[in-house]
Amino acid sequence: MTAPVRVRDPFAWLAQADRDRREAGLVRAVRPRPAESGLLDLASNDYLGLVRHPRVTEAAADAARRWGGGSTGSRLVTGSTELHAELERELAEFTGAEAALVFSSGYTANLAALTALTGPAHLIVSDAQNHASLIDGCRLARARVERAPHRDPVAVAAALASRPEPEALVVTDAVFSVDGEAAPLAELARVCRAHGAALLIDDAHGMGVLGPGGSGSTAAAGLAGGPDVVTTITLSKSLAAQGGAVLGPRRVIDHLVQAARTFIFDTGLNPAAVGAALGALRLLREEPERAERAREVARLLSERLAAAGLAVSEPEAAVVSVRAPSPEAAVAWAAACRDAGLAVGCFRPPSVPDGISRLRLTARGDLTGRQIDFAVGVLAAVSSGG
Amino acid sequence: MTAPVRVRDPFAWLAQADRDRREAGLVRAVRPRPAESGLLDLASNDYLGLVRHPRVTEAAADAARRWGGGSTGSRLVTGSTELHAELERELAEFTGAEAALVFSSGYTANLAALTALTGPAHLIVSDAQNHASLIDGCRLARARVERAPHRDPVAVAAALASRPEPEALVVTDAVFSVDGEAAPLAELARVCRAHGAALLIDDAHGMGVLGPGGSGSTAAAGLAGGPDVVTTITLSKSLAAQGGAVLGPRRVIDHLVQAARTFIFDTGLNPAAVGAALGALRLLREEPERAERAREVARLLSERLAAAGLAVSEPEAAVVSVRAPSPEAAVAWAAACRDAGLAVGCFRPPSVPDGISRLRLTARGDLTGRQIDFAVGVLAAVSSGG
Ligand SMILES: Cc1ncc(COP(=O)(O)O)c(C=O)c1O
Ligand SMILES: Cc1ncc(COP(=O)(O)O)c(C=O)c1O
Repeated sequence: MTAPVRVRDPFAWLAQADRDRREAGLVRAVRPRPAESGLLDLASNDYLGLVRHPRVTEAAADAARRWGGGSTGSRLVTGSTELHAELERELAEFTGAEAALVFSSGYTANLAALTALTGPAHLIVSDAQNHASLIDGCRLARARVERAPHRDPVAVAAALASRPEPEALVVTDAVFSVDGEAAPLAELARVCRAHGAALLIDDAHGMGVLGPGGSGSTAAAGLAGGPDVVTTITLSKSLAAQGGAVLGPRRVIDHLVQAARTFIFDTGLNPAAVGAALGALRLLREEPERAERAREVARLLSERLAAAGLAVSEPEAAVVSVRAPSPEAAVAWAAACRDAGLAVGCFRPPSVPDGISRLRLTARGDLTGRQIDFAVGVLAAVSSGG
Repeated sequence: MTAPVRVRDPFAWLAQADRDRREAGLVRAVRPRPAESGLLDLASNDYLGLVRHPRVTEAAADAARRWGGGSTGSRLVTGSTELHAELERELAEFTGAEAALVFSSGYTANLAALTALTGPAHLIVSDAQNHASLIDGCRLARARVERAPHRDPVAVAAALASRPEPEALVVTDAVFSVDGEAAPLAELARVCRAHGAALLIDDAHGMGVLGPGGSGSTAAAGLAGGPDVVTTITLSKSLAAQGGAVLGPRRVIDHLVQAARTFIFDTGLNPAAVGAALGALRLLREEPERAERAREVARLLSERLAAAGLAVSEPEAAVVSVRAPSPEAAVAWAAACRDAGLAVGCFRPPSVPDGISRLRLTARGDLTGRQIDFAVGVLAAVSSGG
């Protein structure tokens, strides 16, 4: 090992990256929260307000005690417990899919679906505002990828029609995470069928909120159980846990078991998360009105904020988006909300796909009228500089 | 949407993929296990035997009850609790790193480190037998990737010396997952320093087993706290939970917070998993002999199996690998072990990097002499066709 001595700092470049971010005002911080913050939480993705429901937390605790702190291995070795199988059965049943497969996160579920269900014979058509995990999945896939304009089935049809590849997969968020807009799923499915393409729907934000009893966007669009439709979900939002799942035809699920690297080479989801998700799912099935209430709260919040003069989205699920005039304003508003006792999400470039800074409010299904009043009051005051 | 009617089945190709796998004898199955299987478990990655330790499972249960079933959002929004911060502090302290950052899995921690710590100005030099998550991270990174021959610092030096790129990162498993071989970390670090490259060490299988008190491969090689060394670990093996972490210089960790997509766009690790990992870590710190015992069990198992005529690896951590004459033999041996009451891992192409089929035994630190006798007896009988 007689190498030329070239002593240099291999991380020196980080200093410039840091300066660039500071100049652009784009430095983010991790702010660990206490168990009880005293803030009204409109920032989480706990759409049904179940994350601290005793049946959810007790199901998590019981699962840890019965099955252990972790799953101990790949799902193909020791990482599949009967609890995982139970969750998979109930998720499939609830969403109307033939089968389900649980992953350690929604992120890895998306990587799995995109990489294992496409190959060099495929074109992937991906909505321009899809979630980062879908974009990474496209990058990992061995297929050509075309970015389609946002929510544009005509453009998707054109991409499919002009493709040289025999196979194709169209992929979209069902509910776009930042602004809560819904994808035109029924039209996309028609286009896919006309062009022999499969449709992959990421329902992270529709599951538990849209569709009959919260059974999700795929069911809401009449596509559940379709032979050419695959849905991914996360267990970390409405289902109050962690993890993800792919839902679809049995043959698709069987193929993922054989081929998906984030299934084969990743440790199975920890039992407590499996238990929590099962607990939340069972609660939702017993009390399907929880889904309707989340949508109702979203409508209420949106109407009231619009009446107060804010630039609010029409909510299609449980996300209400408030446009801010600038990234600085968004940050200032969010900080002022926090000072007033209200936690809201704040999104600005580069983590907004369209460059528009906004506050993001979660219309939790368990919010009371009084809490909605409070939130509207704070936001109205903050946005008018009051 | 007047598209040519081309009704075809977009998943028809799965049937051929399935036939190909069947013909090659490569079909895998998910076999959900009961909570009490009655088998002696040498198949899991529970190296310290802590996954059902009451202090671990109670810590998981307490965390779920106190913090909820899930973390409710991205680590940058609501997904960072004080419990996450505690785990990060203790992991950094224990491993001798300046700082730590927790991820939802070891897989996503590896994707983060590789993508956020490299760019177009980088060459990545990656060991030919690295874990799937490192390979996927290389594929996602915007850098040129060179595969180096397995455990070959001279080849790594040559790749670094001849690179046109100003920057470089060398990445390796510390303990290779299938056969338990260790990477030549100290040599790799020398080579990296000589050539101005950073070193990324995936210590999934060394953490909790190697180094002083189980503090890991990086510490064992005298590299902990180095300004140019980054380590990733998983919380799903020795630490009896789920999740992953990146350990390294503060500026590296700060950069990951700003730039790593699997940190920013993924839900934070669920509190029960954070709690379980903290519980296991504290146990290990109080009882550092647990790490030594795992290594001792590995040595014992290996010596006894070699004496019984099996083709066993020299264990460098807590993995003992037994070569099988063929993929069919490996499968038959594993099945016979199971029938005799012993669960072992079975690895064969395509999930072995070198094409050699083998049984993989976990030398759990809590195995008793009697259990070791039993395992050796079963394996000796099974491999001799007895
Ligand atoms: C649309 C979408 N897909 C996938 C994910 C990833 O899910 P998870 O956080 O469970 O990894 C998220 C959010 O985190 C999301 O918003
Ligand atoms: C070497 C190595 N790195 C990374 C991982 C991924 O860790 P996790 O299962 O926590 O995602 C594993 C095993 O699963 C592994 O063996």
